[in-house]
Amino acid sequence: MSREWRAEKTIVTIAPGVQVGGNDIVVIAGPCSVESEEQIVTAARAVRAAGATALRGGAFKPRSSPYSFQGLGKRGLELLALARRETGLPIVTEAMDEAGAEQVAEIADCIQIGARNMQNYSLLKAVGRLNKPVLLKRGMAATITELLLSAEYLLAEGNGQVILCERGVRSFDPAARNMFDLNAIPIVQKLSHLPIIGDPSHATGSREKVIPMARAAVAAGADGILVEVHPTPERALSDGAQSLYPEQFIRLMHELRAITQAIGRAVAPSPGTAALSIG
Amino acid sequence: MSREWRAEKTIVTIAPGVQVGGNDIVVIAGPCSVESEEQIVTAARAVRAAGATALRGGAFKPRSSPYSFQGLGKRGLELLALARRETGLPIVTEAMDEAGAEQVAEIADCIQIGARNMQNYSLLKAVGRLNKPVLLKRGMAATITELLLSAEYLLAEGNGQVILCERGVRSFDPAARNMFDLNAIPIVQKLSHLPIIGDPSHATGSREKVIPMARAAVAAGADGILVEVHPTPERALSDGAQSLYPEQFIRLMHELRAITQAIGRAVAPSPGTAALSIG
Amino acid sequence: MSREWRAEKTIVTIAPGVQVGGNDIVVIAGPCSVESEEQIVTAARAVRAAGATALRGGAFKPRSSPYSFQGLGKRGLELLALARRETGLPIVTEAMDEAGAEQVAEIADCIQIGARNMQNYSLLKAVGRLNKPVLLKRGMAATITELLLSAEYLLAEGNGQVILCERGVRSFDPAARNMFDLNAIPIVQKLSHLPIIGDPSHATGSREKVIPMARAAVAAGADGILVEVHPTPERALSDGAQSLYPEQFIRLMHELRAITQAIGRAVAPSPGTAALSIG
Amino acid sequence: MSREWRAEKTIVTIAPGVQVGGNDIVVIAGPCSVESEEQIVTAARAVRAAGATALRGGAFKPRSSPYSFQGLGKRGLELLALARRETGLPIVTEAMDEAGAEQVAEIADCIQIGARNMQNYSLLKAVGRLNKPVLLKRGMAATITELLLSAEYLLAEGNGQVILCERGVRSFDPAARNMFDLNAIPIVQKLSHLPIIGDPSHATGSREKVIPMARAAVAAGADGILVEVHPTPERALSDGAQSLYPEQFIRLMHELRAITQAIGRAVAPSPGTAALSIG
Repeated sequence: MSREWRAEKTIVTIAPGVQVGGNDIVVIAGPCSVESEEQIVTAARAVRAAGATALRGGAFKPRSSPYSFQGLGKRGLELLALARRETGLPIVTEAMDEAGAEQVAEIADCIQIGARNMQNYSLLKAVGRLNKPVLLKRGMAATITELLLSAEYLLAEGNGQVILCERGVRSFDPAARNMFDLNAIPIVQKLSHLPIIGDPSHATGSREKVIPMARAAVAAGADGILVEVHPTPERALSDGAQSLYPEQFIRLMHELRAITQAIGRAVAPSPGTAALSIG
Repeated sequence: MSREWRAEKTIVTIAPGVQVGGNDIVVIAGPCSVESEEQIVTAARAVRAAGATALRGGAFKPRSSPYSFQGLGKRGLELLALARRETGLPIVTEAMDEAGAEQVAEIADCIQIGARNMQNYSLLKAVGRLNKPVLLKRGMAATITELLLSAEYLLAEGNGQVILCERGVRSFDPAARNMFDLNAIPIVQKLSHLPIIGDPSHATGSREKVIPMARAAVAAGADGILVEVHPTPERALSDGAQSLYPEQFIRLMHELRAITQAIGRAVAPSPGTAALSIG
Repeated sequence: MSREWRAEKTIVTIAPGVQVGGNDIVVIAGPCSVESEEQIVTAARAVRAAGATALRGGAFKPRSSPYSFQGLGKRGLELLALARRETGLPIVTEAMDEAGAEQVAEIADCIQIGARNMQNYSLLKAVGRLNKPVLLKRGMAATITELLLSAEYLLAEGNGQVILCERGVRSFDPAARNMFDLNAIPIVQKLSHLPIIGDPSHATGSREKVIPMARAAVAAGADGILVEVHPTPERALSDGAQSLYPEQFIRLMHELRAITQAIGRAVAPSPGTAALSIG
Repeated sequence: MSREWRAEKTIVTIAPGVQVGGNDIVVIAGPCSVESEEQIVTAARAVRAAGATALRGGAFKPRSSPYSFQGLGKRGLELLALARRETGLPIVTEAMDEAGAEQVAEIADCIQIGARNMQNYSLLKAVGRLNKPVLLKRGMAATITELLLSAEYLLAEGNGQVILCERGVRSFDPAARNMFDLNAIPIVQKLSHLPIIGDPSHATGSREKVIPMARAAVAAGADGILVEVHPTPERALSDGAQSLYPEQFIRLMHELRAITQAIGRAVAPSPGTAALSIG
């Protein structure tokens, strides 16, 4: 993953025309978990209408407690495929184990490896062999060096399509859910040719801080944003407090367009809309 | 310092026409330490020419080792006053103890309390009685709540002219000198009516990261930036690695103008130049 | 795992007569990795002769870099079985994924889940179904609550034979490899009925600190110690700097006997030696 | 403070016959704050009767909020002197600023510099000139290197009578008030000739963990313990939750005697009692 081996930046193509790591920044938006057909399709349409580049949504959910909602599993993947048909948005969704990764790879455009699994080397090797773009999130207390070495597990399997993601790390201060380490953006960009995006939802834990911190991530040079949006956050089965309302997401997109323009970049256009059913 | 007691934001006036906390952001720039007349005057002219709002520079330096350069002391204060006469820039400089605070107050426009002294309550009380604007830096592992309580020590002495400063905190990752906790910007703005600025120099520790992280701080909503600029960083007696070259500072100012415009703010104009000797 | 559900302490039996969580503390000792027949058998004999309760040694090794030694795999498990036949010591060894867990379960007396996999919930569920004692290590920046919730994943599968392990956590201070959080010992013992042991090898990262910190863990009330011992640490393929020399391990055992006596406990006797080939 | 400059360990004499850094460990016990004559004399008699080596108690209290109890000041010092006359116990109490340090030095046997002031270099220099033993507490997120450099500020003023104190540091886990970094004990002892003690009261924040963690500190090799004991903790004006009841302190002393014996040390005898009024 080192700049010394490959000076030019890697551009990861997650769907035709949807690239991460170029001049345009991407906005990958959607709910934390897929909860129902209505929920995911409504969310997908809302973020698509506001200009998102891709849809996020979890079918397999890693939860600290075994008694929390664990996701819809295979049914969640089918609903994501449906939402893609409805909106044209490519799908980014998490795999938690080898068996799940194969299921995810059949449907997703990009496989997410979550923070808790950043050093699950068996999963990294398995996903590295699947020939799909990968979104690798930084572990809760992983150093930047460790993040890059985990990416190397994917590259060593022959998969160079890796997007890194800063999502906040553990700190001593309970004032926010995590500490958003935006220094990681320029540091990774100096050390590695891989693109890096920011996740202001997990990095802050409350929706009112998502917009300013999304702006900050882009101003720091991030190649995109991963952000939670839910049609009705107060009814979300997970991460409701940090999910944006659709109208907040519209405002976020306006602000990101202004910030990207200020630094000579742009927000990537949504994938082609010709055949879409958005009314 | 709570928003519950005072809903409208405090605007701190550090010199005629130089306000922190309004719509315009301030840029307080200069070297880590005052080293000589030539160094501080050259630095002051350079940052003034690029559009800085105020001049920073340490006369009393808190250093981890007793054998490191400790600053020029009173002579440093005199050189700061000279630089102010030459450029019109108001002076922000640190006080480390009660006796020093009185000396600093005679010359400085704004007294800085450094990170290591954020919970030096005797100093806070003494500075609180001096009737001067204060720049209070967050401690290396202070929670946001503790920062606000330390500000309360100043307010309790009747001094409401307090500017807070996020300057990076301790973390587990040696990749940067500190971790820049930009979440602190929106959190403080929600909890308190006091203005808050960011210090990307100490928060990153290396000059190549200062520009992107200064942009990020402003995009997150900071009311200004405290940044180290040195005429010849490679010869600096302290903090050389994180000091910008004057030409980098010019570029930083261009970028901050673009970012502030994108969020509906502006960089504060330099203090009036009519009588200045800038050629 | 809560004391509220089960007031009496759980005693985990990892082999006939080898119990964790009772009045006697256990000493699980051996090399970081199984490297060769000679190495593991020599190590096993040495720790057995000094009075160890069980043998540790990794066949599957989670390493930050894909280019580091990854362990001998299945061959490593066979060598551990051989060492057990030679010494009578039960085996504790790590599983990194579901397929590996089944292999490990065929041979090991106790399956270790490493720090990096503490929140690998798929692995926890799979291991929970294997009906073997489990040693669950705390993640590098996991809270104690998260450690207990991860244990709950095992218990929820019907496996109540869980030993927790404090092995040091991430901190801001590079003076040691990790920070040994011995507060975790009394905290876990108040909250949970599960036994908890300490790993002074990973918690310090250098052999000279292992003896005092092993003493400290036992004095804090730990139910045992997991410690790295290598016949020739300077030639170890992993963790050489924190592995004890056999003669240091002998001294450690003497000191642990004194400390346990001081607090009304004892070091568990080694498993019955009648049929053993120790000369 | 380096072992390279001075191989033999420093022994600090805080009163005739009361030494820190020798084979015997010291127990410095008493309330967080001096609250009244009755409170401090009762506390002093209780800890003296149980075998304490010195009395702790704060007259000047650094508190996060300006509205919390700030200590009795000069009157508190007088009450400490009274308690010393009553019990023969030497006094350890904190100074927060230069003026206070001179007052403290007139009465105290050992001047404490608190965690928040570890990098208050003006205070370190002033206290370094007072020719009194100093107890220097580690800052809340200070590295061990920084602790030793702060000690160097005292030594550089000609005062070699410095005792270091590990009192817990900031961590990501809210399960305890601080994280007790006992690795610091062997690390400091390798790097420095200065004695180091542990403060299990601040390091845990709750009295039920004080006894096991005091044992752990001594087992790790600490030269003593600083511990909070209050006649009626539930009525304490500060730190009540972490203050031991007198009967718990008696139990602690029994356990420390056993632990010290196990490692070839002993608890220092209380200062000579011939003239004491203890009934």
